[in-house]
Amino acid sequence: MKNPLIESISKYIILNSEEENLIESFWTEKTLKKGDYLLRNGETCRTDNFVISGALKAFYINSKTGKEEILYFAIENWWTTDIQSFQKQTPSIYNIQAIEETELLQIRYDSFQEMLTQVPKLERFFRIILENYLGSLQKRIIEDNVLDAKQRYANFIENYPKIATKVPQYLIASYLGITAEFLSRIRRKHKTS
Amino acid sequence: MKNPLIESISKYIILNSEEENLIESFWTEKTLKKGDYLLRNGETCRTDNFVISGALKAFYINSKTGKEEILYFAIENWWTTDIQSFQKQTPSIYNIQAIEETELLQIRYDSFQEMLTQVPKLERFFRIILENYLGSLQKRIIEDNVLDAKQRYANFIENYPKIATKVPQYLIASYLGITAEFLSRIRRKHKTS
Repeated sequence: MKNPLIESISKYIILNSEEENLIESFWTEKTLKKGDYLLRNGETCRTDNFVISGALKAFYINSKTGKEEILYFAIENWWTTDIQSFQKQTPSIYNIQAIEETELLQIRYDSFQEMLTQVPKLERFFRIILENYLGSLQKRIIEDNVLDAKQRYANFIENYPKIATKVPQYLIASYLGITAEFLSRIRRKHKTS
Repeated sequence: MKNPLIESISKYIILNSEEENLIESFWTEKTLKKGDYLLRNGETCRTDNFVISGALKAFYINSKTGKEEILYFAIENWWTTDIQSFQKQTPSIYNIQAIEETELLQIRYDSFQEMLTQVPKLERFFRIILENYLGSLQKRIIEDNVLDAKQRYANFIENYPKIATKVPQYLIASYLGITAEFLSRIRRKHKTS
């Protein structure tokens, strides 16, 4: 079976087997138990991380409410990295924590730069997935202000069906900026509509 | 004098004069008057846009308040494009409007793809500027929830000193999610502190 990272890259660019082996050689496997932190606010993000299996939440604490705010979830075939902290090697402003046992592929900052030097066509892959994520993040900012909670939930389960079934409801409520009770009311209505 | 787009690219990758000429050949100049729209909500974003001079605001209407919400400003040497609409050639979910006379360099979708095919090293440039913008957007989402208005204003003028002097105060207030009156109080305190 092919490495899932290579499969993911191969959706956007064509790699020969030599390039595949070279890319694989830069990455190491890492397992997190449920509750383990991949990154803590204030630490420098040393690795870029590709999720093979499991689930993580990226979050920070809202200083006004004292509550966790979810920035994003990451499940298999997603990336989870504080991009600014990784790219500039400066302290992170958020936390990434496993919400179930999670397997990752990791690459350290220097290896990431070296991999791009040795396989420059990867620049295209990262450019495209960054465009995708940036587009969805801008959309989320706007929808948070423009749509009501019911519509946001409907969009969430349409856009992220796997996350919707995998992640606990109270975390999805946090992501949507509503209480767990309110989400449960929306879900009942959603099922019957 | 060098084309400002070529200067901007040359901060991240090395171009020879042949590549510079080739890249320039894909772009056309466009002037917007104050108030002209570059893009309207619902239209497909046909061009990627690099700002030579002037200033624009990217905004949408908050359905709860009926007010404009500023997604970002763009001044010289910035990009202003609905990345998702441009990349997928689907309708945009926001508006981009000139807030003063503005000169742009534009490239159409097909030309953008062709330019990347002919000058693949540009992938690296776009990957890096996307990382930069994504990092600052995640930071802004978190700071909006974590910092008070006074701290957000202090960060804004530190991070974007040129925009802070160029853009009208009521638009900066909108970007910071506060009223113009509240911003004016913060500014008085900021100057005397």
